[in-house]
Amino acid sequence: MKLANNLKRLGTESAFKILAEAKKLESEGKEIIHLSLGQPDFKTSKHIVDATIKALNDGHHGYVLPNGTIECRTAVTKKIKNLYNADIDPERVIIMPGGKPTMYYAITLFGEPGAEIIYPDPGFPIYESMINYTGAKAVPINMLENKDFSINPEKILSLINENTRLLILNNPNNPTGSFTDKRIIDQLSEGLKKFPHVAILSDEIYSRQIFDGKKMPTFFDYPNLYDRLIVLDGWSKAYSMTGWRLGWAVWPEKLVEHVIKFCVNNHSCVNAAIQFGAIAALEGSDDSIDLMMEKFTKRRKLIFDGLNNINGIECSLPGGGFYVFPKVIGTGMNGQEFTKRCLHEAGVAIVPGAAFGKKAVDHVRFSFAASQENISIALEKIKKMLQ
Amino acid sequence: MKLANNLKRLGTESAFKILAEAKKLESEGKEIIHLSLGQPDFKTSKHIVDATIKALNDGHHGYVLPNGTIECRTAVTKKIKNLYNADIDPERVIIMPGGKPTMYYAITLFGEPGAEIIYPDPGFPIYESMINYTGAKAVPINMLENKDFSINPEKILSLINENTRLLILNNPNNPTGSFTDKRIIDQLSEGLKKFPHVAILSDEIYSRQIFDGKKMPTFFDYPNLYDRLIVLDGWSKAYSMTGWRLGWAVWPEKLVEHVIKFCVNNHSCVNAAIQFGAIAALEGSDDSIDLMMEKFTKRRKLIFDGLNNINGIECSLPGGGFYVFPKVIGTGMNGQEFTKRCLHEAGVAIVPGAAFGKKAVDHVRFSFAASQENISIALEKIKKMLQ
Repeated sequence: MKLANNLKRLGTESAFKILAEAKKLESEGKEIIHLSLGQPDFKTSKHIVDATIKALNDGHHGYVLPNGTIECRTAVTKKIKNLYNADIDPERVIIMPGGKPTMYYAITLFGEPGAEIIYPDPGFPIYESMINYTGAKAVPINMLENKDFSINPEKILSLINENTRLLILNNPNNPTGSFTDKRIIDQLSEGLKKFPHVAILSDEIYSRQIFDGKKMPTFFDYPNLYDRLIVLDGWSKAYSMTGWRLGWAVWPEKLVEHVIKFCVNNHSCVNAAIQFGAIAALEGSDDSIDLMMEKFTKRRKLIFDGLNNINGIECSLPGGGFYVFPKVIGTGMNGQEFTKRCLHEAGVAIVPGAAFGKKAVDHVRFSFAASQENISIALEKIKKMLQ
Repeated sequence: MKLANNLKRLGTESAFKILAEAKKLESEGKEIIHLSLGQPDFKTSKHIVDATIKALNDGHHGYVLPNGTIECRTAVTKKIKNLYNADIDPERVIIMPGGKPTMYYAITLFGEPGAEIIYPDPGFPIYESMINYTGAKAVPINMLENKDFSINPEKILSLINENTRLLILNNPNNPTGSFTDKRIIDQLSEGLKKFPHVAILSDEIYSRQIFDGKKMPTFFDYPNLYDRLIVLDGWSKAYSMTGWRLGWAVWPEKLVEHVIKFCVNNHSCVNAAIQFGAIAALEGSDDSIDLMMEKFTKRRKLIFDGLNNINGIECSLPGGGFYVFPKVIGTGMNGQEFTKRCLHEAGVAIVPGAAFGKKAVDHVRFSFAASQENISIALEKIKKMLQ
């Protein structure tokens, strides 16, 4: 069998490999604290589960439209109006089986040899994987140059040339936990006016997980960019629905038909019944989000203080999301070595920084979507491991 | 915005467009009988729904493995053993959000400029769409050369050359309804021994819908092909679960890691809760399948006789699946014209043959996954339309 050559360029997301490895160790009787996967450790709210169960009992078992039911898409636009006061036509919304398909298709739409795509580095690994896979040039935004992982609009704009087709941004950022506030995004958006040939993929999947009472600086604030703006968001992180596989994105009007074509060629449509759960989530109370953020706020302090108290580890305070991205090279190990010892000696599953970009070899990512108790035990075990 | 050039080569599945058009007419108050989409008109069985509801209530809301839970994959291998007496390692099974993702990734794995992929023509439109999209040469198996749409192993083998990477087969066939029996598949499989460089994608999604008491001539019968055989099947058609988005495929061992990479880059994993429903389907009784086939057998006779009784329409008796693929050119219209008038004048949604391949312009596809009453009314309305 001869396989297509471009397969060699396809990357992966190591968190899933680490999950598989950790599960294997668990099956052998080892206790593992999971701080690797990016999923909140809460169950989905009952009203969402119940709406899905009702839909299943009501017989919603057949195909629906490939871009999502009109009811689900309308619920998305109402939530956008409610959160950001932006008016979006439901025909621009496409419901996807998760957040990743939006990345996959957005990058596939623009990427090919000769094209350039700008992406955060370190960043969610699927960006770079898919850019490389299409044969486009992956142009990194260096997220490590500032100690707090903040971004410099001017430097980002300086990466744009005539071959640039897509600029990928992720705020709050995974894996760094950094949060870029509205003032900076305003500057970036202003600068982007000079480059009308560049589309923007704003990955806002952590939009509901921002600390210190700050507001989400969404790209929906810039209607002048709407004709080339893709905003990715979804249910996974906000409503603890990672395993449901539900995401949404708003696309520029003229890209919609292309994206629907990809849906039709690949997954046909998203599960019909869970789109009722999706509506219940958007239309229901945000109490579960508030509760989650209360807990995340405590855990953030716990892990930030705890890691900084360990010799050789330097950790920044995350502004959003539920990750910290400490530098561990001071322990005498790079991120890869540190991760390996954490898993096998301390029984703590985390992800090496290199999984998010080649420059981040000195870092590791901890998810603090775990109980305070587990975070405390993990910190103790790592401390002990390093003695 | 400049888009990737290969987008121009991506096709689509017209059935979804026709569904959207028909739904629009319905919303304007027109009554439509749906004989276009390939979905059984039965609800999913209660034991499957209940197992999913239990999983939702039990809190299965988080990520699972990208290739599917081991429990779900094991249930698939047990069913294969039970149906076909074949021993398959669960690590070769990949659970997908439908049948199409298996096609999408199989074709993507092999397709690139210079490669050739053989596919049935007319056939399920995603085959040709994806082959063209990858830049490979789409080499058609002419399904129209025999009146009963049967295939000729020798002719298929004669299409193979050194550039051939993948041979796609679909038995029972959509859209023709033809069924190729084991004697012919034996010959084909024997001939394929001479071409060890060619992988086989056997799309067996209609494996549980075969008429006249015949057995499914599955490619699982040929262990000597296992190292290059992909068998696609799933829950959609057999268990009336189209809108659930659940499929499975068995892959050659050495392709598994590549396919998992695609899953990780695209949908991460299949919805966790519905994999419990999937297990319940495979482990539960086949009564719903038997009942469905009883009804399909009656409907098949009804539509076959009914269409042949209309002047200018010639229809073959399908051996499997739930489609008939009559030639309608005798009415003075080609398939496209006939379909259009059916929808707008008779209120019957069907699909033109050309949606399945350029050669099939004289044909249309009727799905008979509809009540006998609706099929009778549809036949009457078409008869009236032609008077």
